Amino acid sequence: MSVLVLGIDIGGTNTRFGVVDREGCLHAKGSLRTGDHETLEGFVKAVADGCRSCLAQIGGGKATAVGIGAPNANYYRGTVEHAPNLQWKGVLPLAQLVSEDVGLPTWLTNDANAAALGEQLYGGGRGMKNLVVVTLGTGVGSGYIVAGNLLYGETGFAGELGHVIVEPGGRVCGCGRRGCLEKYASATGLVLTVREKLAAADARGASGADGSPTSLRDLPEATLDAIAIHRAALAGDPLALEAYRDTAEVLGLALANTVAITSPAAVFLSGGLARSGDLLLAPTRSAMERNLHPAFRGVELRISALLEKDGAVLGAAALAFSERHGDDA
Amino acid sequence: MSVLVLGIDIGGTNTRFGVVDREGCLHAKGSLRTGDHETLEGFVKAVADGCRSCLAQIGGGKATAVGIGAPNANYYRGTVEHAPNLQWKGVLPLAQLVSEDVGLPTWLTNDANAAALGEQLYGGGRGMKNLVVVTLGTGVGSGYIVAGNLLYGETGFAGELGHVIVEPGGRVCGCGRRGCLEKYASATGLVLTVREKLAAADARGASGADGSPTSLRDLPEATLDAIAIHRAALAGDPLALEAYRDTAEVLGLALANTVAITSPAAVFLSGGLARSGDLLLAPTRSAMERNLHPAFRGVELRISALLEKDGAVLGAAALAFSERHGDDA
Repeated sequence: MSVLVLGIDIGGTNTRFGVVDREGCLHAKGSLRTGDHETLEGFVKAVADGCRSCLAQIGGGKATAVGIGAPNANYYRGTVEHAPNLQWKGVLPLAQLVSEDVGLPTWLTNDANAAALGEQLYGGGRGMKNLVVVTLGTGVGSGYIVAGNLLYGETGFAGELGHVIVEPGGRVCGCGRRGCLEKYASATGLVLTVREKLAAADARGASGADGSPTSLRDLPEATLDAIAIHRAALAGDPLALEAYRDTAEVLGLALANTVAITSPAAVFLSGGLARSGDLLLAPTRSAMERNLHPAFRGVELRISALLEKDGAVLGAAALAFSERHGDDA
Repeated sequence: MSVLVLGIDIGGTNTRFGVVDREGCLHAKGSLRTGDHETLEGFVKAVADGCRSCLAQIGGGKATAVGIGAPNANYYRGTVEHAPNLQWKGVLPLAQLVSEDVGLPTWLTNDANAAALGEQLYGGGRGMKNLVVVTLGTGVGSGYIVAGNLLYGETGFAGELGHVIVEPGGRVCGCGRRGCLEKYASATGLVLTVREKLAAADARGASGADGSPTSLRDLPEATLDAIAIHRAALAGDPLALEAYRDTAEVLGLALANTVAITSPAAVFLSGGLARSGDLLLAPTRSAMERNLHPAFRGVELRISALLEKDGAVLGAAALAFSERHGDDA
């Protein structure tokens, strides 16, 4: 049997884990609800038990390392720090706790970095030395691979594309500033854009964006989410389509600007909003290419090849492979 | 005697070269006018002769390698490609030609990348693994060092901060697009900002920015350059000071945004406009810090330590050291 590692993806709602080989085959997997565990120690124990149970399922196979993807993770320190979506506060020494329980060398990185490693090892970025993965979910995350390695920078927090300011003085962001990309190009941002358009149309006494009716106006406030907007856009709703175009315009310019810094071979879109497929991809590509400096023509924009797979677990496994086995496995 | 290399800085007007040791001491140097040489072969011969003469001056010392910094240089190919400010058109195999004439291994990179290497090896960035040098001259160039190495990306052209679009639909740039940083935060950009302010004041029937008189109005069009604006600002001219503040605002935001991508320990400003010193540095730092995501607080903004030295030749020499001797010299 080929070399196996454990990949663990910690999210605010669910934590998923699995046993993965070098080719990206998931031999066994499991999950648990993150919020069910009051103490961090109890959570770590449950994850470790789940991993052991996965290994038992495949006949007692042995893993060589553990990779963890988590929000607000600091790779250098192996910690999760002040994650707003987790119930344990402060600085959590997760890599150490998991390593002690599982008895294997363990590495930790943030979820977008894990996604970038997964794309490179198992996804559309195979063989690429320079790529970017942008995760468009509740927020916007990003992982940059340059010259074959993850970009961490001085702090370990490099690759915060979601907190590039694209609209000075614009929408208030959770980070305390205004106009960050993630308030425009995330699922949350898409909803805000639709709300602003509805309010503007109200102010003009019109129904939709260009005065034509929009089905989104009839939705109860609480159900106006990115999925509802996606559905409306697919049905040809003009306001929903306009909101997608606006989102793509902001995202495309931000991507062209970041391509000018790191010059990747390709940019991959992942996360829930990337499930919009061509509704988002086509106008974003158009905006990116229109704003691209000629030296970078040819950079590809694609949907992540791992979007509909267990991409986050594969990404975490990719971290374990790259740290434990480098290029030799 | 310690290991010696040759550093060559090719500019549109002058080409400078010298013999440099590992500590950044320039043992001998020379220069020639780039434009005096009609053929590329004649230019290469003159540069090689100059380098040989430098080595002769220090008693026939031997160099181990050559580093060249040049505009529009492609590190991967060793070529200068379609440089608008050089008289030789097309793709110039400069590294190969110099190597053949001088008889030493030769590396070529763009001038801003060389400046970044120089800052790291000889300047304010000694010991830093992550830094950015931004050259503010006629245009804006930038060199990024990440995890100890220059960032080249897929194309070799990574680090084009000057062509990040900061003002969609803004000033026309030489690259064919609009709103690039270099049309705002270069010497050229500062002059454009002053011209726009004078024109706006004219339209309002006022003299200066806030209606107060400005000495810049009395300058003949041809002499309104960055040096004149610097002088006026030092004398307290309100329009000149306002132009500096506007420049700093645009530059500071662009720096905060690029820090969020590569997370350097420090950003160094170089090039002619950086000679403005605190007139530019203080308001740029203020704008950068105001726009910085909390994760990156503590990143330094400084004037290049090589600004008033032969920084470009030292930078080219640093390339030769890093390629030929890595960390062992």
